[in-house]
Amino acid sequence: MEQKLYEGKAKIIYPTDNPNILLTEFKDDATAFNAQKRGTIEQKGEINCKISSVLFQLLEKQGIATHYIDQPSAKQMRVKAVTILPLEVVVRNIAAGSLCRETGLEEGTNLPFPLVEFYYKKDELGDPLLTRDRILILNLATLNQLEQLQNKALAINTHLKTFFNDCKITLVDFKLEFGLDSEQNLLLADEISPDTCRLWDQSQSEESDDRVMDKDRFRKDLGNVENAYQEVQTRILSQFKLTINNE
Amino acid sequence: MEQKLYEGKAKIIYPTDNPNILLTEFKDDATAFNAQKRGTIEQKGEINCKISSVLFQLLEKQGIATHYIDQPSAKQMRVKAVTILPLEVVVRNIAAGSLCRETGLEEGTNLPFPLVEFYYKKDELGDPLLTRDRILILNLATLNQLEQLQNKALAINTHLKTFFNDCKITLVDFKLEFGLDSEQNLLLADEISPDTCRLWDQSQSEESDDRVMDKDRFRKDLGNVENAYQEVQTRILSQFKLTINNE
Repeated sequence: MEQKLYEGKAKIIYPTDNPNILLTEFKDDATAFNAQKRGTIEQKGEINCKISSVLFQLLEKQGIATHYIDQPSAKQMRVKAVTILPLEVVVRNIAAGSLCRETGLEEGTNLPFPLVEFYYKKDELGDPLLTRDRILILNLATLNQLEQLQNKALAINTHLKTFFNDCKITLVDFKLEFGLDSEQNLLLADEISPDTCRLWDQSQSEESDDRVMDKDRFRKDLGNVENAYQEVQTRILSQFKLTINNE
Repeated sequence: MEQKLYEGKAKIIYPTDNPNILLTEFKDDATAFNAQKRGTIEQKGEINCKISSVLFQLLEKQGIATHYIDQPSAKQMRVKAVTILPLEVVVRNIAAGSLCRETGLEEGTNLPFPLVEFYYKKDELGDPLLTRDRILILNLATLNQLEQLQNKALAINTHLKTFFNDCKITLVDFKLEFGLDSEQNLLLADEISPDTCRLWDQSQSEESDDRVMDKDRFRKDLGNVENAYQEVQTRILSQFKLTINNE
């Protein structure tokens, strides 16, 4: 294996012989609260790699350009090389997490429209919420890119919400990252997994923590983290097969 | 004096015989950091009442509707009764304060355009920054009201920036509050004073804290708070007389 290009909290990026292609390796390491809480979720690397691969393929079929190429091994994904924008694009269907802490909205409140929000990927500032104007002033994206991000995020939400619903999972909210390829095309990048989504099991009671199938199990010490991630993978894989067979 | 209708950190509101008119009394009490820091600034009540009266009159002359009626005594202002929107509307010309802490922008950076920002007036949440979408979801204002607030804030900034510049004072940023009268007209309300503006003395060095003429002297324990407020009043009063005489 060549030398690492970059190691983040959840993934390692390796170069390949082709400068336009990178190899992403998913780690079992888990962090929360800006890495103040650290741990390991067994099998997470493999599970998140598989789930992300499936969801990227699903979105590509819907016409959403992603960085996904293929999955050469269980924990590894080959991706198109992009320059990641320093923005976390969050789409929310139901109020949870920081939205509740910052606005007083009750967790579980259905939002009247999908909320697309931007956060600054900057650990030393604690990944703060950004307004559109702050993004422009900080030169983190152009107005045109912002509009593209908003539209892509909403389209991705529509597709993912339907797909997760078919899996009997409610897509509460999720975080996306985008990158620019050498031709300045905006590609969906990073990952889409229980690390980056809030997913609630529709077969569990609304009042119960048992419904939580995502990283909140780790954040809030709810236990059975591995099982929850595994269950998401199982449902997504079988639904994806159905989708493909129906084509 | 009748019973108080409301007592805030810096002002007391009294009812009058006319339900459409209220009496505002400006206090010498000073608070900062969500009232974690408390103190008194001598003469502040009188100074802020006078400065606000002058600035409201100035803005009325420019066609901006305000709640100001008149100033029956040194610390008191008669105002039109309005229902205050739970939003702090902040206009920024130069980066300072929370904008710098939250974005990493250096204090003193000239912004490429005036930044209009909204904060939730909610002490228990620490007055958080709000995006336009969060305002709509929380039902704190309608889309039409948001557009009006944005346009009014920018117009007010244009007039105040020019006026302060004539006083040899740089208007760095300021906070406005608006209220709805019984006919749902949006009126500029609250106060405009060194408590609610960042004001830098153009006759002092850019590198020196001596230039600070506003509540940052209290927040940062820079001393000479009363003198600074007094100096702002003196310059504003003489410039306002010039303005009136030129009409």
